[in-house]
Amino acid sequence: MINRKAKGTKGERELVQFFNENNWACIRAAGSGSSRYPSPDLLAANAIRRLAIECKVTKDQKKYFSKDEIEQLKFFSQHFGAESWIGVKFAGEEWYFMMIEDLESTGSLWAVDVNLAKRRGLKKEELVGNVNTTNSSNSTS
Amino acid sequence: MINRKAKGTKGERELVQFFNENNWACIRAAGSGSSRYPSPDLLAANAIRRLAIECKVTKDQKKYFSKDEIEQLKFFSQHFGAESWIGVKFAGEEWYFMMIEDLESTGSLWAVDVNLAKRRGLKKEELVGNVNTTNSSNSTS
Repeated sequence: MINRKAKGTKGERELVQFFNENNWACIRAAGSGSSRYPSPDLLAANAIRRLAIECKVTKDQKKYFSKDEIEQLKFFSQHFGAESWIGVKFAGEEWYFMMIEDLESTGSLWAVDVNLAKRRGLKKEELVGNVNTTNSSNSTS
Repeated sequence: MINRKAKGTKGERELVQFFNENNWACIRAAGSGSSRYPSPDLLAANAIRRLAIECKVTKDQKKYFSKDEIEQLKFFSQHFGAESWIGVKFAGEEWYFMMIEDLESTGSLWAVDVNLAKRRGLKKEELVGNVNTTNSSNSTS
């Protein structure tokens, strides 16, 4: 459990570094998930766009999100004035960023596996760049 | 030192609660001050305004800020697209929020004491409300 949390923190710090290197401002939230109030794991912005990102680092093949996690992300983003994004890093893969609508609904949960992430997700360079120039079909077009 | 840090965290959590109760979204930054990249203590926003806030809880009569702290706050705010604010809570007093220009320059540091905070600062209700309706003269007019 501690090890899993440490991997999540390390992954988030790598993203903070990436955003900063691309001239975005980015902060990691303290105690995300344990806070009384909705809070994404990362908040990144430049002068034009603001991204609230729920991040998951996993060694599993499929990652699940509870309805509550998704609702809290949407609630925060609506109040903050940010876009809602899900960031997932599967073992041996790059980070992929998905919009909530692109997750698979399993009824009581939302899910994403490696194939879905690769098919519909954006790589981090696409997330911060002009996403309309990507070759893959994705929900932002 | 640990006690001082705990008081700072407690103070920040109270502000997170206040912002949420007033329908703003707000997150506390993880490891602010120890991060490699500029990060304010709090980031609060609604659909219209975004505030990057450096927070200090102190039992001293006067609080100092290094040039570096102020520069990092300004850097973050410029990249994120947020207003820079300094929040100070002196013992037995409410929180007061100041703009950087309202701090006293001591040459190598910036400073604020209780009198300056009361004269030029905004109370938290003024910070989230219509600051132009305050009776006190302040820098936002």
